[in-house]
Amino acid sequence: MTTKVNRNQLFFAFGPNLQPASRVKQGEEVILETHDCFEGQIKTTKDLVDELDWEHVNPATGPVFVEGAKPGDVLRVDILEMKVGPQSSMVTIPGEGALGDVITKMETAILRMEGDQIVFKDKIRVPKKPMIGVIGVAPEKDAVPCGTPGPHGGNMDCTLITEGNSVYFTVGVEGALFGAGDFHAAMGDGEIVVCGAETPGEVRFRAQVMEHLKGLPTPFVETDKVVATIYSAGTIDEAANGAIHRMAQFLTDFAHIPLNDAGMLMSLVGELKFCQVVDPLKTIRFEFPKSVMEEYGIRM
Amino acid sequence: MTTKVNRNQLFFAFGPNLQPASRVKQGEEVILETHDCFEGQIKTTKDLVDELDWEHVNPATGPVFVEGAKPGDVLRVDILEMKVGPQSSMVTIPGEGALGDVITKMETAILRMEGDQIVFKDKIRVPKKPMIGVIGVAPEKDAVPCGTPGPHGGNMDCTLITEGNSVYFTVGVEGALFGAGDFHAAMGDGEIVVCGAETPGEVRFRAQVMEHLKGLPTPFVETDKVVATIYSAGTIDEAANGAIHRMAQFLTDFAHIPLNDAGMLMSLVGELKFCQVVDPLKTIRFEFPKSVMEEYGIRM
Repeated sequence: MTTKVNRNQLFFAFGPNLQPASRVKQGEEVILETHDCFEGQIKTTKDLVDELDWEHVNPATGPVFVEGAKPGDVLRVDILEMKVGPQSSMVTIPGEGALGDVITKMETAILRMEGDQIVFKDKIRVPKKPMIGVIGVAPEKDAVPCGTPGPHGGNMDCTLITEGNSVYFTVGVEGALFGAGDFHAAMGDGEIVVCGAETPGEVRFRAQVMEHLKGLPTPFVETDKVVATIYSAGTIDEAANGAIHRMAQFLTDFAHIPLNDAGMLMSLVGELKFCQVVDPLKTIRFEFPKSVMEEYGIRM
Repeated sequence: MTTKVNRNQLFFAFGPNLQPASRVKQGEEVILETHDCFEGQIKTTKDLVDELDWEHVNPATGPVFVEGAKPGDVLRVDILEMKVGPQSSMVTIPGEGALGDVITKMETAILRMEGDQIVFKDKIRVPKKPMIGVIGVAPEKDAVPCGTPGPHGGNMDCTLITEGNSVYFTVGVEGALFGAGDFHAAMGDGEIVVCGAETPGEVRFRAQVMEHLKGLPTPFVETDKVVATIYSAGTIDEAANGAIHRMAQFLTDFAHIPLNDAGMLMSLVGELKFCQVVDPLKTIRFEFPKSVMEEYGIRM
């Protein structure tokens, strides 16, 4: 039997004192239903952001207590399946986001799903590319609002975090207290106006402690093609520096690639990429091809 | 007859007072042969960077005087064909690049081409992805060393600048004084240790003034799939801000997309990407899908 957590079992900050919504064994499949980042408050183009209850923005579903996960453990979360709703929304907010200085008009747009496509304002068709905006575990000490990214995960807005991929976190408290929310039917790297196609959804995942990966620089993502370090900081420059150094650390300490080779290969085939530049902290990732890592004899 | 410019007709700074290596008509095909960024000084792994003559680093071939190109014109350069050499090199330089604080050993690696692959240190195979590191026109006033990017182009290290794509520049001086160099057989976004697979090469191009695009936010790139603005600045944060605002300007002023739609679509399907974070200025680009632009009835 798969455990299912209803979308109304939600929280607004990843913290050590959250009450678990559910307790699961390692490797057990769990389904989380999620609200969109507005907790469903936007239904039509008439629902503008200045009328929202901002106490109900950026919820995550959970948290899920993973049995046996202890502080310092590395928890791998496999995203087995991910669904998004039939309708999503986008908004413009004067003063917010990377174009907040030029955008003067508040607006809500509705996007509907049509097969593998998203239709923006009944006019523009773009490919559906679902991803999870908020995902993480409870930090050891102070609670972090779900809208903020950090070492525990949170609002990283990383487009790699989607069906078929795995995310690694360092456990902060007993049971990890894992949660997720803020799904996007699509989002471009950067998240310029602070939203993707904001949608409710459902994710099926399983979580497992990886003993041999203790010390992994987390948050860390694995896809079929790449591994990626993720780092958030007050400026993009700092976040980029963090993501780059963590990948160098991973390639030398875990993949046992000599530092000079690691640096040159990061320069040759690694990719520094943006997650988002609009949240309280900016998030950058560094992707490295698994095929090259595997030529040094290393697998995750 | 195609004009060909030998790789020894080179210069080390884009400036208004350069003597043209060649004069061509608009639309005329031109071939530039290029040195690698070390002007061929690195031949084996024994050629370390501390033995190089640094007065001979980062040459561009040219400049080419394009007849009829006047200050303020927008010049489109179509990259028709691009070749790289059979061997390329990479280096580590302690203290330089994004890992300069941890890299302590100077090293030179040799990479050889094998069909569509590059073989790093006779061991690691990665795909060949040729691109042009340095490309630009003379600025109106002060000369800019070829190792530095700027509004005139220069060392942008943008992986989109390759065969089949077009680059747009705003002409600074009569004849534009176009040049290119610093080819890479492959380079990852970010250029972590300040080099890709550094290679000599050859590019066949044609250049043409685009009257209807006066005022285009340049440097600007067009591929079969995307248009991209490019911006360089002292910090990544500033460069990202510049690239984002220039794309918004392009989408509103040239593609006539309403600002809110432009912002939301940039957030939904636009991509903020790194060119390089290791030169005197950092370079960021913003890519936007042509298919979406064309749904608003606009073509370049």
